Amino acid sequence: METIYASIITIGDELLIGQTIDTNSAWIAQELNKLGIWVRYRIAVGDVKKDIVDALVTCHAMSQLVIITGGLGPTADDITKPLLCEYFDGELIENTVVKEHVTQLFTKRKRPILDVNIAQAMVPSTCEVLWNGMGTAPGMWFEKEKRITISLPGVPFEMKNIMEEVALQKIQQYFTTPSVIHKTIATAGKGESFIAVTLKEFEANLPATVKLAYLPQLGGVKLRLTGIDSTDEAMTNLQNELYQLVQPIAFALQDIPLEKHIGEQLLAKQKTVAFAESCTGGSVCRLITSISGSSVYCKGSAVVYTNEVKHRVLQVPNELIEQHGAVSQEVAEAMAMQARTHFGSDIAVSTTGYMEKSKTVTDALVWVSVTDGTNTKTQSSILPYNREKNTELAVQFALNLLRVFLSNG
Amino acid sequence: METIYASIITIGDELLIGQTIDTNSAWIAQELNKLGIWVRYRIAVGDVKKDIVDALVTCHAMSQLVIITGGLGPTADDITKPLLCEYFDGELIENTVVKEHVTQLFTKRKRPILDVNIAQAMVPSTCEVLWNGMGTAPGMWFEKEKRITISLPGVPFEMKNIMEEVALQKIQQYFTTPSVIHKTIATAGKGESFIAVTLKEFEANLPATVKLAYLPQLGGVKLRLTGIDSTDEAMTNLQNELYQLVQPIAFALQDIPLEKHIGEQLLAKQKTVAFAESCTGGSVCRLITSISGSSVYCKGSAVVYTNEVKHRVLQVPNELIEQHGAVSQEVAEAMAMQARTHFGSDIAVSTTGYMEKSKTVTDALVWVSVTDGTNTKTQSSILPYNREKNTELAVQFALNLLRVFLSNG
Repeated sequence: METIYASIITIGDELLIGQTIDTNSAWIAQELNKLGIWVRYRIAVGDVKKDIVDALVTCHAMSQLVIITGGLGPTADDITKPLLCEYFDGELIENTVVKEHVTQLFTKRKRPILDVNIAQAMVPSTCEVLWNGMGTAPGMWFEKEKRITISLPGVPFEMKNIMEEVALQKIQQYFTTPSVIHKTIATAGKGESFIAVTLKEFEANLPATVKLAYLPQLGGVKLRLTGIDSTDEAMTNLQNELYQLVQPIAFALQDIPLEKHIGEQLLAKQKTVAFAESCTGGSVCRLITSISGSSVYCKGSAVVYTNEVKHRVLQVPNELIEQHGAVSQEVAEAMAMQARTHFGSDIAVSTTGYMEKSKTVTDALVWVSVTDGTNTKTQSSILPYNREKNTELAVQFALNLLRVFLSNG
Repeated sequence: METIYASIITIGDELLIGQTIDTNSAWIAQELNKLGIWVRYRIAVGDVKKDIVDALVTCHAMSQLVIITGGLGPTADDITKPLLCEYFDGELIENTVVKEHVTQLFTKRKRPILDVNIAQAMVPSTCEVLWNGMGTAPGMWFEKEKRITISLPGVPFEMKNIMEEVALQKIQQYFTTPSVIHKTIATAGKGESFIAVTLKEFEANLPATVKLAYLPQLGGVKLRLTGIDSTDEAMTNLQNELYQLVQPIAFALQDIPLEKHIGEQLLAKQKTVAFAESCTGGSVCRLITSISGSSVYCKGSAVVYTNEVKHRVLQVPNELIEQHGAVSQEVAEAMAMQARTHFGSDIAVSTTGYMEKSKTVTDALVWVSVTDGTNTKTQSSILPYNREKNTELAVQFALNLLRVFLSNG
């Protein structure tokens, strides 16, 4: 079966000057992947005719499907439609269905209809119009030399609407594509290179139709198996095999964040949690409460940012801080212990650390302690980045220690 | 003066399959714009040698500067570096400085160093190494036929670090670019269209060499004036004129976040702050403590996520919660009042709200109260997005109320 490749061209100065981040391309790529179509090339150009034509030529040489987004707004400097006319040997003609639709939209919103709005009904005679239920700029479908070109508006919800309602179905009908199955394993606590060594043999023995991708994130790596024309059973078997190999750092057979997994574990065990945060400033609790329904298992957090407040709010003895320093195993453990009673939770997690180097601190460092009142697990980690990244890493380190604590309990 | 154009090539299957959204390109474009360099073309390719070479050829034909990100990680298929060797007529040689740096990083983190890590020290002989203080993959600078090519790792904070610490300066020294002056005004509390109406006349009267950009963010809009070959005095005058027009929503004559401005205000007034957070789960305190040195003025936060804990930790009367509901002006004010004494701070800020619609909640909503014990300011806001965006918006709403409180005090 011939592999179907796609290219994406995004048009618009706002993308090139960095004012807008292109989220359309990722969404389109994901949707095409589900159909077994691979995005091979992506080009972003400004509102410059020559550059757009060059991009079209390049993309048509590389792929059977080209998707263009942007360049269709009701503005005067619009060059995309005349250019598509020229490229696909057509002329601009009025589409009565689109004109009716645009007119109705404006009447409904009780806004005066302008010439630039009516002009949206002008489309190249060589295209098939793709219905835009969410706006005034129609999508357009061109076929030339067994290659398909689709032009879509750049506004994300209009683009998505045309793709979901019309374009994806037409693409699937036009091309003969293989079936694609993705299986993901979420891991935490080890880096990409460490896992790669563990999986060297597994990777070497994978069938040619299955690929393994490492998707690193701060604090962990997502492992994704992609199978072409594979059965769901074969892919599930590979996923299970992979899961066994990366235990105990694997925590889920799906693409979920650590905080969601922890929430599920707390719910299953009917346990509540609370936090005492110094260096993380509330970030650990913020992530845990980002999950809908977390008020069932999360009591809260005492963000005790100064030594005085560690004593005032959590009764951490001043002598302990003086003797060992605020960033120490002893203070971390005292904070976790006190947080349990402070909030009346089953489990408590504490963080205390230096998030950046300074005159007095040679290495950024975090201490984390987890306790259920009987068992306590306390660990530290050196943090190699800047203040912002170190804080994120400290949060992931704390979440992972809580995960390990829960999985052993 | 010759216009300097840049192109950006991003390498990586994860970008093409839509797993990762490319935020690097927008950041790079913004930084180059500040130097008077315009991004003309952007190409995303997978880990395919032919496609990467094609992209290089295309981009070199269109621009004097090509920036490549990605394709350099320890598990990346060994394509990019050998390809750059070939393209720039070099051979892979070991760079002892990079090797030393990689070895030290692993020793410090007490992790075993692997062959794939050591391999990061192999670089093309025709490049100049750009120091990566945040990771193991070095940046590379190539010069060929008066065109510059820079290869950077794809991890955003590593890429940014190399650009900020080394590459941007080298780019500025290499190319002769027009002088570009940016003047920014940071605002909070109003949307883009509201501000656009206020500034209609100001915009119409701007000289042709000066442009005004609206950079909307959650909770506010940055206004950026860009002048090409303008004087600093003329630009400062325009900035001051603009500042007067958008008072009282403007809070800074520079591009700083609200939490930094608030920190500066607290330092200047020698006041301390503490928080009582329900719906925001610690996010307000997290932002305030993201600023280096914030322990001088930020005492901490009581994240009281459940009603029981609001009473247990902050002594909010149960009757008050029963009578008015936890999401109410009365409970917000009680939380702020209690947080002041709980932490011994001068000022306290509370948040309580619903972050998403549900069977019992028709509209997501937040109540925020700010108090110094004598004066109290309490306001609510409807939140129109999903749980995640609503939480961010609630945090910005709280920070802005604190800003207004401080500016009046």
